[in-house]
Amino acid sequence: MMGHTLAEKIIMKNTGLADLHPGDLVTVTPDRAVVHDIYTKSLYEKLMEMGFEKAMYPERLIIFHDHLNPACLPTDPDSLSYGYKLRDKYHVGHFHASGGICHQLIPELGYGKPGEILLGTDSHTTTAGGVGCFGTGIGYTEMAYLWGTGKLWLRVPSSIKVRIEGKIPSNVYSKDIILRVLGDLRAAGGTYRSLEFTGSAVESLSVDSRLTISNMVVECGAKAGLFAADEKTAAYCKMPYESISWVKADEDAVYERELFYQAEDLVPVVACPPHVDNIRPLSEVEGVKVDQVCLGSCTNGRLEDLEEAAKILKGRHIAEDLKFIVAPASASIMEEAVKRGWIQTFVEAGALVTPPYCSFCEGRTMALMGDGEVMLGTNNRNFLGRFGSAKAKAYLASPAVAAATAVKGVITDPAHL
Amino acid sequence: MMGHTLAEKIIMKNTGLADLHPGDLVTVTPDRAVVHDIYTKSLYEKLMEMGFEKAMYPERLIIFHDHLNPACLPTDPDSLSYGYKLRDKYHVGHFHASGGICHQLIPELGYGKPGEILLGTDSHTTTAGGVGCFGTGIGYTEMAYLWGTGKLWLRVPSSIKVRIEGKIPSNVYSKDIILRVLGDLRAAGGTYRSLEFTGSAVESLSVDSRLTISNMVVECGAKAGLFAADEKTAAYCKMPYESISWVKADEDAVYERELFYQAEDLVPVVACPPHVDNIRPLSEVEGVKVDQVCLGSCTNGRLEDLEEAAKILKGRHIAEDLKFIVAPASASIMEEAVKRGWIQTFVEAGALVTPPYCSFCEGRTMALMGDGEVMLGTNNRNFLGRFGSAKAKAYLASPAVAAATAVKGVITDPAHL
Repeated sequence: MMGHTLAEKIIMKNTGLADLHPGDLVTVTPDRAVVHDIYTKSLYEKLMEMGFEKAMYPERLIIFHDHLNPACLPTDPDSLSYGYKLRDKYHVGHFHASGGICHQLIPELGYGKPGEILLGTDSHTTTAGGVGCFGTGIGYTEMAYLWGTGKLWLRVPSSIKVRIEGKIPSNVYSKDIILRVLGDLRAAGGTYRSLEFTGSAVESLSVDSRLTISNMVVECGAKAGLFAADEKTAAYCKMPYESISWVKADEDAVYERELFYQAEDLVPVVACPPHVDNIRPLSEVEGVKVDQVCLGSCTNGRLEDLEEAAKILKGRHIAEDLKFIVAPASASIMEEAVKRGWIQTFVEAGALVTPPYCSFCEGRTMALMGDGEVMLGTNNRNFLGRFGSAKAKAYLASPAVAAATAVKGVITDPAHL
Repeated sequence: MMGHTLAEKIIMKNTGLADLHPGDLVTVTPDRAVVHDIYTKSLYEKLMEMGFEKAMYPERLIIFHDHLNPACLPTDPDSLSYGYKLRDKYHVGHFHASGGICHQLIPELGYGKPGEILLGTDSHTTTAGGVGCFGTGIGYTEMAYLWGTGKLWLRVPSSIKVRIEGKIPSNVYSKDIILRVLGDLRAAGGTYRSLEFTGSAVESLSVDSRLTISNMVVECGAKAGLFAADEKTAAYCKMPYESISWVKADEDAVYERELFYQAEDLVPVVACPPHVDNIRPLSEVEGVKVDQVCLGSCTNGRLEDLEEAAKILKGRHIAEDLKFIVAPASASIMEEAVKRGWIQTFVEAGALVTPPYCSFCEGRTMALMGDGEVMLGTNNRNFLGRFGSAKAKAYLASPAVAAATAVKGVITDPAHL
């Protein structure tokens, strides 16, 4: 028997199967099932339609109100009401109305655990892969079936190894790494694959940085983006390392392909409009005028992201006429950022700091852009219409580049401030 | 010649007239003309229509982006673009894109000065009366004429004296005072009148408290809500008292009527749905379940308001399922509240803290409510549909009551926590 990738090992553990291969159809019993407020109403209706009056494993269910809270469109309060209905009718084990964005809270609150399977009604559920959890997105119809039966079928994905060796330059961030990978794989290049990150450079990454990478793997279509569990994972998840040391690929695992990067060769990059895989070196787009900068989100709204931006913004003010929106990824991050003085730095610099929710990422409210406007954000998507007008343009980059760009009002390398 | 009210004296000073009486039609040359982002597009179009290619006094003009920034509806970015157009074409003297809500910034930044006339395209422009400035709202057509000519006609209002003597109980706030006055005058009872607040209890009020009262005088239709300038005003406005000591009514001023209150008799009150003048003692509505609490706004989003709420919320958490939105009135208030630890207190208590802008007051986005939901807020209006669904209900009260209500999830007297 050949060795297995991390995705395969997690699915084997869950199903109890002694062996499996990419393409196998298996039935998993997910450890967690997550739904957020965009889909609570649809889920409720599907559950009714399917005749599920009870959830099979209420303790495994989690509801988040993060996309529609605070309610910003007239239909939002009605949608939110279904979260409460679901919770009460199905005795849902975990409910979070205002703690922050689900993709951050899942690892932060210990819902996403190394070696477990977590399914959620959102494409960025892959974020949990940063702590070695097989997190992936499903639709609300599948979610209804999962609530009712506790099970769901899954096709075992083939895996792509992304190996990065060496020392990452100090001006290169995890955002640059995942953007580079997306640029190389292109938008459909990882479809239904598990991306597994490995190598000495990957080991050096903080858990925050890993979460940023796993968050964005879905932008090349990946089913999951996994990191082996190590001591950092154990500390983050507050679990003994021994209990999760198995959460790594076998030495002789079989991959569909391998991408290799020498860390020292990496440079700061930017995703250019209108696609996430339209990657160019930062040096080529410096000087592009922007009307808005967005810092934060579930992609880059963690402490190390805010710290990096605060370092640059301390004592500086944003450019005239620029709109600068900051959205921490969770309430506890907001709290900590307040304590450390970073929120003060942002406000003094001229930022509008939003509550920790999906805010500027949705294109439905908060920081919408008009025809011809340009933004640079640390978000995960820059599709047409993602931020209001389809005639607006969006660039994606690291928090450091976002902060420097906010100061200058044009896309700026922090080294050139 | 009889003495004059404060409104009359300010208009006399502005026009140079030696005498005038309520009902007189006069032409004033306002010291300041304020427009915010809701009306910049309409103003621009009117200016075009009227053929005004230049502003008469560019230095007197102020533009605020506070209602639509961050842009939350698809049409907002287009509206905001007109603010920039106006600024550039008319060489507008003062432009604020993200410092906070205009009604707070006007006194805070020294635009609203004692004894001056300030006209703005918003009904709550009356707020400036808290520092003895004749602030009042006009439409955008009048504003276009004012931009073009520097002048506008005005009917001299008759005045109502609101005299409050004695010591205000410690559980009674300026919000209780103005709500009580509105309950007594009713919604149309002050139409086109200048309300002039006086008496030993009024003298004891902080400038923050006076601004709350002046903010809400328009809820009984008043043209202005004026406080005589005193040492506190001078300190707030950073002006020598001697230069503004004339900003007070004459001893023998003629008022249309007088409302008298003995401060010791005042009690905490609440404006009940669906009208601001539907006032009842707090004790009669205690226990009403709420789904949402809003703290802040241009009415009660100043430092003393946030401090009062933070005192109550320190170490406490809001009720389960409650939505608690906090909106400081300006960026400098936000900064100071961060420094003093109050924002941390709010976030720890479970609040969603919004940037300093009109956020939850507009009924267009942010904290909208659904059918049958109930809120209590420190805002200035509780009309049907003001916060989303016309089937939602809103109560108005002081920041202290808002904080206590957030803790309990039902309308609560802070004394009963």
